[in-house]
Amino acid sequence: MAQKPTLPKGTRDFSPVEMLRRNYIFDTIRRIFRSFGYAPLETPAMENLSTLLGKYGDEGDRLLFRILNSGDYAAGLSDEEVRQATKISEKGLRYDLTVPFARYVVQHRGELTLPFKRYQIQPVWRADRPQKGRYREFYQCDVDVVGSRSLLCEAELMDIVARVFRALGIRILLKVNNRKILYGIAETIGHADKMTDITVAIDKLEKIGLDRVKEELRERGLGDEAIARLQPILELSGSNAEKLDRLADILAGSETGQRGIDEMRTLFGYAARMGVELDVELDLSLARGLNYYTGAIFEVKALDYAIGSICGGGRYDDLTGIFGLPDTPGVGISFGADRIYDVMTGLGLFPAGLDSSIEVLFVNLGTEEESASLRLLGQLRDAGIAAEIYPEAVRMKKQFEYADRRAVPLVAIVGSDELARGVVTLRRMQTGEQYEVPFDELTAHIAG
Amino acid sequence: MAQKPTLPKGTRDFSPVEMLRRNYIFDTIRRIFRSFGYAPLETPAMENLSTLLGKYGDEGDRLLFRILNSGDYAAGLSDEEVRQATKISEKGLRYDLTVPFARYVVQHRGELTLPFKRYQIQPVWRADRPQKGRYREFYQCDVDVVGSRSLLCEAELMDIVARVFRALGIRILLKVNNRKILYGIAETIGHADKMTDITVAIDKLEKIGLDRVKEELRERGLGDEAIARLQPILELSGSNAEKLDRLADILAGSETGQRGIDEMRTLFGYAARMGVELDVELDLSLARGLNYYTGAIFEVKALDYAIGSICGGGRYDDLTGIFGLPDTPGVGISFGADRIYDVMTGLGLFPAGLDSSIEVLFVNLGTEEESASLRLLGQLRDAGIAAEIYPEAVRMKKQFEYADRRAVPLVAIVGSDELARGVVTLRRMQTGEQYEVPFDELTAHIAG
Repeated sequence: MAQKPTLPKGTRDFSPVEMLRRNYIFDTIRRIFRSFGYAPLETPAMENLSTLLGKYGDEGDRLLFRILNSGDYAAGLSDEEVRQATKISEKGLRYDLTVPFARYVVQHRGELTLPFKRYQIQPVWRADRPQKGRYREFYQCDVDVVGSRSLLCEAELMDIVARVFRALGIRILLKVNNRKILYGIAETIGHADKMTDITVAIDKLEKIGLDRVKEELRERGLGDEAIARLQPILELSGSNAEKLDRLADILAGSETGQRGIDEMRTLFGYAARMGVELDVELDLSLARGLNYYTGAIFEVKALDYAIGSICGGGRYDDLTGIFGLPDTPGVGISFGADRIYDVMTGLGLFPAGLDSSIEVLFVNLGTEEESASLRLLGQLRDAGIAAEIYPEAVRMKKQFEYADRRAVPLVAIVGSDELARGVVTLRRMQTGEQYEVPFDELTAHIAG
Repeated sequence: MAQKPTLPKGTRDFSPVEMLRRNYIFDTIRRIFRSFGYAPLETPAMENLSTLLGKYGDEGDRLLFRILNSGDYAAGLSDEEVRQATKISEKGLRYDLTVPFARYVVQHRGELTLPFKRYQIQPVWRADRPQKGRYREFYQCDVDVVGSRSLLCEAELMDIVARVFRALGIRILLKVNNRKILYGIAETIGHADKMTDITVAIDKLEKIGLDRVKEELRERGLGDEAIARLQPILELSGSNAEKLDRLADILAGSETGQRGIDEMRTLFGYAARMGVELDVELDLSLARGLNYYTGAIFEVKALDYAIGSICGGGRYDDLTGIFGLPDTPGVGISFGADRIYDVMTGLGLFPAGLDSSIEVLFVNLGTEEESASLRLLGQLRDAGIAAEIYPEAVRMKKQFEYADRRAVPLVAIVGSDELARGVVTLRRMQTGEQYEVPFDELTAHIAG
């Protein structure tokens, strides 16, 4: 026997049981996206490297999977040139769904109806070092609206977050912040120029604690006075409204900061009027790395399972600017399907019965009985009931083992006795209970 | 304005309307696969080149998209080596779903419950020259069962074909043949060694006519006598049963041929007993190129639209042999989603209303009215109804234009008058008809 074939590192097959569970997550997310009027979009796995390069920083460029040019890629190139990736590859695999979406919006700007609400559920690829929970191929579930500055869009995304995780049974905390408030804080402590340094440092507050954040701020060039002014802001407590009231005083001198506070008040007001059921915390240390965010930012933490953020996003004012189309504001969030899968597995949240792909298995007792079973099978399938017959009349033990291994809830038996009386014997596999149902009542019995 | 970004040639975005139509096809196919007990499987986009190379012939090897090795791909390689694709790329994009499926079966042979019934709906990539209807990224919808030699499997696949195309509204003809019969024919005319030449030539019968097929057979080394013995077989007419009866006489000397005839009789018998509603034609010129087929072969033609085959497949006895696991028979078919899409578009078969992703749009008349609308919106979404509110209180004309462009069937208006009386004015966009519904009856009214 030859050596077993393998998969490239960091990639996975999804077995039937994994697929049924993953589809449960995707179907739930998709159903809720749709109920908010978002429409599906898909983009190709490959993009031109000119679309991808420079959009994710130097590290991102390094992590792109590049496609080797087709045909004789080295033809006409010097030895030097063949050693340059840009000469022998012009295409790469998509790294996220945001840049392809921005590319799509720019390419179709003439035809799109704004505001344009789209969702996109597709895999992305990154040549990251594989480790537990980090793969080189993984799915993102993005939902974005471009072409509106209304904060109602943010409120709807909060409602989507609330509904998705309620439907999945995951208790969460939604952390929100606003990039304008972060700018206002930097401005107020006299370091508007150091907003990125400040946000990068305070983003680590939860992970490394206040003392080490202060240390890092010092290393990044903040003086003791600035740090002393920052500390009480980070230590603000109370309700979201109380925090915003205190902030309004503290950031009195920052016009941008005030706009951020107004935005958050408007957003919380919308969420309340929409009846969004969600634990929301204004977390001033939440920064999110991506530089394109300009307003509200979001991050979702699972309450009962230790794992990184399972969903996040925010408002951007100029995402399409990278492709030469300015002034197209938008806001979006992305659900991390792999982490959500881990949370649900860890907490045992998948519904019972999800792992079976058959509702009824007919045992096969030979030609004559088989014919009756086939007719009944057709009726069940007409009614959308997943049903099959064991394809050969092998011994019963083997057929029942098959039923067990496929977690079939119901086995149907049509033997010569049943055939003579026009009934099916049904056996509930979990309890062992057996009973008879007339042929012409079978579909209704199982569908009911 | 910078130059518009573009897509790699042969790749496509799928706009919301295209996605809604494509999902209609995928959902229909998936629902029917599931009703037959097939379980979902997904494999990664990338496979090791050792898995892919040599499985699709020289032409296939050339058409593989190769992934450039990550990091410094040229490090430590000589100038000569950098010019060899095998030295700088170890992974490729999957070319079909069959080889990854065989790889999966071999890799998981210890854990799989046989017979193993899986479906797989994923894109594949081929560096083919793009042309009308031929893309470099396209979806395949495969359904296979491995681990059973029962012809019931073939019969079920015929039933799946019948149900899928009936559900989609496409009138079809299923052409069937059997590789054993083809071998029997080759044997009977004295050219068992030339089975491939014979099948390649007679596969073109419909396209180029009998005279040119005979010419090609001559070029491929068949003598006049052999061709004279072949001709009446190709011209067999009558019902499938009649053809099989005649063949049984003609192939009397070929044991393999007789086995093929028996298989087809058994298969047609199963299909009849299952009540498969399908036009089936035994077409002795049907060969299908793939060498791994060993029994029944299938191909589906649309009756009302000129396009190549929209579905095809067959039985293979040793697919996993390429990975060192012999004796794992299987049978499968593949639906071509792109061509099915073209047929449905060409014949206008997509259901009306499919192109809208919103059922109800609330116009936005300002803060106070908006609040009432938001509550109603939440109730509709609770009931799974796709609904949204225009995110800003801009002028009505603009909001109604948006409703038109998104093909919204129903616009909901809550103005100050409606608010005072607790009613919504609904406008059917297609007829212009307007009427009022009380707040607390809205969801039931629309859901009903």
